[in-house]
Amino acid sequence: MKTEVRTILENVKNGDMSVEDALLKLKTEPFEDLGFAKVDLHRKIRQGVAEVIYGASKTPEQMIGIMDTMIKNGQDRILITRLSPEAAGIIGKVHSIDYRANARLALYGGLPEPTGIGNIVVATGGTSDIPVAEEAAVTAEVYGNKVVRLFDVGVAGLHRLLAHKEEIMEASVIIAIAGMEGALASVIGGLADCPVIAVPTSVGYGASFHGLSALLSMLNSCASGVSVVNIDNGFGAGYLGSMINHMGV
Amino acid sequence: MKTEVRTILENVKNGDMSVEDALLKLKTEPFEDLGFAKVDLHRKIRQGVAEVIYGASKTPEQMIGIMDTMIKNGQDRILITRLSPEAAGIIGKVHSIDYRANARLALYGGLPEPTGIGNIVVATGGTSDIPVAEEAAVTAEVYGNKVVRLFDVGVAGLHRLLAHKEEIMEASVIIAIAGMEGALASVIGGLADCPVIAVPTSVGYGASFHGLSALLSMLNSCASGVSVVNIDNGFGAGYLGSMINHMGV
Amino acid sequence: MKTEVRTILENVKNGDMSVEDALLKLKTEPFEDLGFAKVDLHRKIRQGVAEVIYGASKTPEQMIGIMDTMIKNGQDRILITRLSPEAAGIIGKVHSIDYRANARLALYGGLPEPTGIGNIVVATGGTSDIPVAEEAAVTAEVYGNKVVRLFDVGVAGLHRLLAHKEEIMEASVIIAIAGMEGALASVIGGLADCPVIAVPTSVGYGASFHGLSALLSMLNSCASGVSVVNIDNGFGAGYLGSMINHMGV
Amino acid sequence: MKTEVRTILENVKNGDMSVEDALLKLKTEPFEDLGFAKVDLHRKIRQGVAEVIYGASKTPEQMIGIMDTMIKNGQDRILITRLSPEAAGIIGKVHSIDYRANARLALYGGLPEPTGIGNIVVATGGTSDIPVAEEAAVTAEVYGNKVVRLFDVGVAGLHRLLAHKEEIMEASVIIAIAGMEGALASVIGGLADCPVIAVPTSVGYGASFHGLSALLSMLNSCASGVSVVNIDNGFGAGYLGSMINHMGV
Amino acid sequence: MKTEVRTILENVKNGDMSVEDALLKLKTEPFEDLGFAKVDLHRKIRQGVAEVIYGASKTPEQMIGIMDTMIKNGQDRILITRLSPEAAGIIGKVHSIDYRANARLALYGGLPEPTGIGNIVVATGGTSDIPVAEEAAVTAEVYGNKVVRLFDVGVAGLHRLLAHKEEIMEASVIIAIAGMEGALASVIGGLADCPVIAVPTSVGYGASFHGLSALLSMLNSCASGVSVVNIDNGFGAGYLGSMINHMGV
Amino acid sequence: MKTEVRTILENVKNGDMSVEDALLKLKTEPFEDLGFAKVDLHRKIRQGVAEVIYGASKTPEQMIGIMDTMIKNGQDRILITRLSPEAAGIIGKVHSIDYRANARLALYGGLPEPTGIGNIVVATGGTSDIPVAEEAAVTAEVYGNKVVRLFDVGVAGLHRLLAHKEEIMEASVIIAIAGMEGALASVIGGLADCPVIAVPTSVGYGASFHGLSALLSMLNSCASGVSVVNIDNGFGAGYLGSMINHMGV
Amino acid sequence: MKTEVRTILENVKNGDMSVEDALLKLKTEPFEDLGFAKVDLHRKIRQGVAEVIYGASKTPEQMIGIMDTMIKNGQDRILITRLSPEAAGIIGKVHSIDYRANARLALYGGLPEPTGIGNIVVATGGTSDIPVAEEAAVTAEVYGNKVVRLFDVGVAGLHRLLAHKEEIMEASVIIAIAGMEGALASVIGGLADCPVIAVPTSVGYGASFHGLSALLSMLNSCASGVSVVNIDNGFGAGYLGSMINHMGV
Amino acid sequence: MKTEVRTILENVKNGDMSVEDALLKLKTEPFEDLGFAKVDLHRKIRQGVAEVIYGASKTPEQMIGIMDTMIKNGQDRILITRLSPEAAGIIGKVHSIDYRANARLALYGGLPEPTGIGNIVVATGGTSDIPVAEEAAVTAEVYGNKVVRLFDVGVAGLHRLLAHKEEIMEASVIIAIAGMEGALASVIGGLADCPVIAVPTSVGYGASFHGLSALLSMLNSCASGVSVVNIDNGFGAGYLGSMINHMGV
Repeated sequence: MKTEVRTILENVKNGDMSVEDALLKLKTEPFEDLGFAKVDLHRKIRQGVAEVIYGASKTPEQMIGIMDTMIKNGQDRILITRLSPEAAGIIGKVHSIDYRANARLALYGGLPEPTGIGNIVVATGGTSDIPVAEEAAVTAEVYGNKVVRLFDVGVAGLHRLLAHKEEIMEASVIIAIAGMEGALASVIGGLADCPVIAVPTSVGYGASFHGLSALLSMLNSCASGVSVVNIDNGFGAGYLGSMINHMGV
Repeated sequence: MKTEVRTILENVKNGDMSVEDALLKLKTEPFEDLGFAKVDLHRKIRQGVAEVIYGASKTPEQMIGIMDTMIKNGQDRILITRLSPEAAGIIGKVHSIDYRANARLALYGGLPEPTGIGNIVVATGGTSDIPVAEEAAVTAEVYGNKVVRLFDVGVAGLHRLLAHKEEIMEASVIIAIAGMEGALASVIGGLADCPVIAVPTSVGYGASFHGLSALLSMLNSCASGVSVVNIDNGFGAGYLGSMINHMGV
Repeated sequence: MKTEVRTILENVKNGDMSVEDALLKLKTEPFEDLGFAKVDLHRKIRQGVAEVIYGASKTPEQMIGIMDTMIKNGQDRILITRLSPEAAGIIGKVHSIDYRANARLALYGGLPEPTGIGNIVVATGGTSDIPVAEEAAVTAEVYGNKVVRLFDVGVAGLHRLLAHKEEIMEASVIIAIAGMEGALASVIGGLADCPVIAVPTSVGYGASFHGLSALLSMLNSCASGVSVVNIDNGFGAGYLGSMINHMGV
Repeated sequence: MKTEVRTILENVKNGDMSVEDALLKLKTEPFEDLGFAKVDLHRKIRQGVAEVIYGASKTPEQMIGIMDTMIKNGQDRILITRLSPEAAGIIGKVHSIDYRANARLALYGGLPEPTGIGNIVVATGGTSDIPVAEEAAVTAEVYGNKVVRLFDVGVAGLHRLLAHKEEIMEASVIIAIAGMEGALASVIGGLADCPVIAVPTSVGYGASFHGLSALLSMLNSCASGVSVVNIDNGFGAGYLGSMINHMGV
Repeated sequence: MKTEVRTILENVKNGDMSVEDALLKLKTEPFEDLGFAKVDLHRKIRQGVAEVIYGASKTPEQMIGIMDTMIKNGQDRILITRLSPEAAGIIGKVHSIDYRANARLALYGGLPEPTGIGNIVVATGGTSDIPVAEEAAVTAEVYGNKVVRLFDVGVAGLHRLLAHKEEIMEASVIIAIAGMEGALASVIGGLADCPVIAVPTSVGYGASFHGLSALLSMLNSCASGVSVVNIDNGFGAGYLGSMINHMGV
Repeated sequence: MKTEVRTILENVKNGDMSVEDALLKLKTEPFEDLGFAKVDLHRKIRQGVAEVIYGASKTPEQMIGIMDTMIKNGQDRILITRLSPEAAGIIGKVHSIDYRANARLALYGGLPEPTGIGNIVVATGGTSDIPVAEEAAVTAEVYGNKVVRLFDVGVAGLHRLLAHKEEIMEASVIIAIAGMEGALASVIGGLADCPVIAVPTSVGYGASFHGLSALLSMLNSCASGVSVVNIDNGFGAGYLGSMINHMGV
Repeated sequence: MKTEVRTILENVKNGDMSVEDALLKLKTEPFEDLGFAKVDLHRKIRQGVAEVIYGASKTPEQMIGIMDTMIKNGQDRILITRLSPEAAGIIGKVHSIDYRANARLALYGGLPEPTGIGNIVVATGGTSDIPVAEEAAVTAEVYGNKVVRLFDVGVAGLHRLLAHKEEIMEASVIIAIAGMEGALASVIGGLADCPVIAVPTSVGYGASFHGLSALLSMLNSCASGVSVVNIDNGFGAGYLGSMINHMGV
Repeated sequence: MKTEVRTILENVKNGDMSVEDALLKLKTEPFEDLGFAKVDLHRKIRQGVAEVIYGASKTPEQMIGIMDTMIKNGQDRILITRLSPEAAGIIGKVHSIDYRANARLALYGGLPEPTGIGNIVVATGGTSDIPVAEEAAVTAEVYGNKVVRLFDVGVAGLHRLLAHKEEIMEASVIIAIAGMEGALASVIGGLADCPVIAVPTSVGYGASFHGLSALLSMLNSCASGVSVVNIDNGFGAGYLGSMINHMGV
């Protein structure tokens, strides 16, 4: 950014650019010229990895259109989240996708080689949390991480969790996913020595209040190193997990 | 109860009691004559054990008066809960009491010998939960139970809890007390094979919302055999624990 | 458990097992060898009683598969809760089950003889609470308890409840199930002298807020000996009731 | 009211009042002249009964000033609610008042003879509810009702309530006051055959959430004839009770 | 009631009834013999009026069965609330009913002559509140009250409400029904001088939170004489309104 | 208004109107004669602009009937909000309407020329907020405002918002519409120097709690000049925006 | 703003400023030079009006320091909100301020002449709302508006409000301030034809839940033209009111 | 861990340890011998860094005792959080501490050299958030991070935040701390390309509901890479920030 503004200024000094033009340029193109670097960095970071489409509120036709544009622009890896089987069926007739029904997402262009610091462990309290967990896991894989899945290791059967102590101890990042009482995040947070991303799920009934119970439980975790994302936000956890697992890489 | 109503009826039959008197008796003393057995059973159960005074909204003078009456009626063991040190000081000048500052309760007449099936384990997540835990523990002791205290064994440091696996496995009843995320109840419920009484506490800050987080967490416990009492209700947990530990005794 | 670890150690001492093999065994089978006794006890307790399948989030095919495995392993009694009539129809073509439409559960292998201390009374405030009540009642029966059903004895018509005073006074455990204002638990808690497990239900409308009103009401019960499980959690209440009714047995 | 407007109109017709004056009068004194009858009725109803001052947010000096005005205008009975002992002390030096510390209210001019249809029963679940109950009771008395107090008859000890079945059955209106689980309103609503005004109180701790639990419980009452006022609103209940007890009188 | 118990006692005295039979009678029929007068009074009050069936959770067949029994026992007026058009169609083939689609209720046996002190005004804030209002209005009519309907007189168009000032001033009881902000109850409470029963409705969207906004608003009404029933509880308001309108009658 | 009451009074004075007739007139037509000017002003303001029908709870037939009446009375512009495509299809067969599917509203009579002080900017955080935004925008247009649409300028991509700094700085009124975290209102409120009307939407999932999160966020905005309307209330925002944009016009 | 950036550019062109200095200037003072116009506009608007200090979390010394700086920079009018009497006393020793105890704010430099379109009416439901109302009123006055105060005109006494119909009808903007049920905003919104800014207050008890009841009520207002600010936010309402009252001025 | 268990086994094999002793060792010291590696890792990680004491619920004497033990065990750096000035004064007489009043914490042993990947930016919305921010910042510093403080850069004055775009773009981890509407996290999350830890604070009034508004806002952030910790949990954010900033180091 500095360079660009300096260039404008030097052009003005040299008479290569009129004051009017410089003024206009500084005012009308703020995010390209004044440099919200994120745009550029973002673009760079994503190169060769994946572009994401949030499928929940889009028609299959809209998504096909977006994919067309992306592919035309050289994007060779696309992730579509919250995608119904029906919509996947329609899209699949146009583009070659790998639809994961249990995660309700589709992959275009396959998974890249893992490049992160270590493994991302994705653990769930029960089997009903798996859709959210798969969204997190595949997101992490799409962004270049090796994922270890530990499903159905809820704290009510501690031995199942402790049987995987080693994977937990060796993880680079752990994504702990649970509904109901959400205690998994605290227990894992106490065992592990790496950042733990807690994802409350809307799994449960009665006083689970659609994930509120798990959410509050996770926010109150006594274990250090635990932070929380929105209820059922598997994508957000997978993305943040990847970000942390690529720190300094 | 049956006997008493029968006696009245037989007295009427025999002419020993007039219809008017019987009618009056049946109408005016329902809970003694028509037999809400609880009163009697209650009395029996409490014999030699303890009468309880809820001290929170009473003046020292009122409590001394109640104690006077109880003692005059032969009660030789009294428990006063939610008692401030100041009030305890005033009462202590009149009656010989054992004040437990960390539980904010006082004992008159000492503790009885334990008579229950087994031990009641009272476990807490942290040290701040100890006042509630002591209220539960001393209540259980006053009602004739052997109590094992496992304080500060929260799930964020699982090894501390697991170091006491044996006490947990051998308990007759467990009272699991925790604030913040309240995960202790689920973890203990998963380890133990006895009834677990969960007590959420108001310990915490922020999104603990004065115990709501722990309460919801405990109600959603995936472990079987867990039930919940009101936030900070140590007495209720101790009383219920004693009731269960004396089943069939 | 102790025995098993000792055996391994003795085998190592005797040279019957290499250090590597022992290490592997201790590491890879922690919940069988290192002994989270619950597993074993659990197994013992359940012998001849019942294995439970939570049917809510499983396909009929999955449930048939689980049943196959259980039956092959000698399990002769299975309880499937939260089972739709449609799923029951499919399962019923493969395994001989007794489907209880009003409790939305199925039994395989029939009910055992009662073995508990006394009766478990299952009481409801209204007729709409019956599905939850039947889930509790049949669960208790499957675990070997004699159940007395007192349905539609809500506190707004106190005479209906008091007509059953005797059953209430004689119960070993009472499961009080109510939606709306949930006052049943307190009234029964005041009448009875045994543990009362309160189950709030989502029955109601408006300010019942899907069971929240009954839940709060039950948590605030002034009667001693009352504890609460999750909204609509009939199974949990039946299981805990059985546990308490088998104390010391 | 009709009369007054008619008088103005007739004065205009007769030339005793100019159109301008009439217009002004109709415009500037709408609530006296255009007749929101409530004002007049209100005045009538209150005659010889009592004027009320809500003391919570007023200084003793302000209250003395208001009393001065009222007394000067012929008011011979005044009720001051939510009045601290300190403020009462200051007022008592100027006006002769009867301060009821347990209801935090003061009476000036004493109580009138009862004039209602029957008795108003004021019942409380516990002793801590008495301040609210006394506010309701004295308010009802000030408005000319005979009040029967049934304190500490909570549902956890049903026999205490049933011992007063007769007072309940014979009441004209019942004010049921309770904190914690608030079940009293439902049980009384089921026993009685008269309107029941339920007053939740902020008495309790933990999941009582400052009266929310009792409030929801009372709103969900299955008993017919029950309605609810704000938490701790003893005055509102006493006033409405009096209104109902004077229907058709 | 007194008479019946006396009769039993006199029969015992006279030898016309054995002690055993009397004991059995007193024990097994407590609500008829021991006299929770409500039953009797209730019956008396309802004579010639109506029996009510809450249709929400019953099948048409169950309701027909209940109606058969009622009619056989001489009941000549029945009200079925929360009845779907489909269920009404089925019932209508067996019993002659008057189905009111806008109130979702059915009448069997027509409406009685009004017998109350005065009129019950049923007012609504909007047209969407009419189903709840009609439930309240028809309930009041079935119990013998003259009902004045003031629909769509919400406070946002105050002139519409004030156009009916006279009906409001002359009412014996007012039922104020509103969703959204629920201000109608306060405004009417300020205008009228009779008891106002406020019914919040679930009409609205967004921050109305299914009636919570109107409920809280009504509970906080600054107007004296206002009390509140559950959200959408038209029947409860109509029943209580009738009770008040028959005070002393 | 003044004029009318004066006329009545002068007629009375002149003997052109009897006292009785004047009295009747003053009493029975309060909102026409006593002058709640709003009615008149309202009528005037709307002339040539638009009448609004809230379509959510009306049948197509009812809406056609209302339109018939309006058109007969000379109304040449009608806006129907919350209108389903199906209902629009039926209405469209009778009246010539312009149905906007993305706003779920229909226009009859087209849009007027803009008459306000300046532009109303309607901005949204995401594409899912567009239905609410279009309701606001078209409402503003129907009431005579020039509208600038800035959709999908959420704060997570600040450069998109800043690219439109000029439109924001020059706006007369801004309507900021967002679900999820609702931060758009604060950021725009900080940039702009005109009134900002914030509209939370129910867009989101999990802890958005159907718009509660955005609502609270907007109410807590640190930026001056921001006020909030109900969740999803596009019409209300558009109407208020128009009102402000016509101040002093 | 444009001017300043242009000046820099022209200076660079003319060689009066080096590229380095221009770059530094553009980078280090972005909000002055790169022109988020708000700053400038803001400055203009405030000229001769007032600078505001939010006193709640500042020490008297900090506030004196801020005032010193402001005054030195030519600011001749300062408003300090949420200022305790104690802090005002300390500040008053250094700067000449006009402290308004009932609004908990202080004025330095007096009030300007009103310049808005019309009057801003500030109305309150009760006398307890006056502190918030005075904060709103004085804020509006400080920003150059004529304010009409209508205090204690709550809807429970509609005649008091209607007595001021004329002020309401003639207002340019109305600020409706109420706690408890918050109905004032809807009623005024229905009467008036100008923007209404609703301010819920934390006045009340019990189910007012510290202003939540009034807040929800106001958000659900059926009247068009009503928007809402945060609970007790008198300043925000006064500021927005002034903004609207100066539209096009 | 593997090594230790192996050593025990080899000792048993070699006869250097009896089976009994090995059994005892394996059973009684589970967290040291059976290897919850966290303990060890934890110890290692902390070497030369800092031990933490949560001061909120401890007496100065207890804290001095804990410090004594720590120092005796070679700990040369201690952090005490949530420490009142009074307690700090007492501790300061025994141990040499650096008390930071604005963060309510004390340091013993000074700060270490930074060792992380990059800078941790700690940003706050307002000046009232500084205590939480300083707790986060000093925690991060104690764990070996370079911290950049950006205080009072709330989104309502976007230019202040954008003036620090460079620090934000270059950060390794950002801790975004805000009360009220909590929008800071989203805006920063949109600008930055590193993990953002959002800390809601209880700063605010009215509808901020003690941090709930900010909490929900942050959980709903549309920006990727944002996760949330408990309200006011500065320590947790600082600790997690350090953990992330040391990934792979």
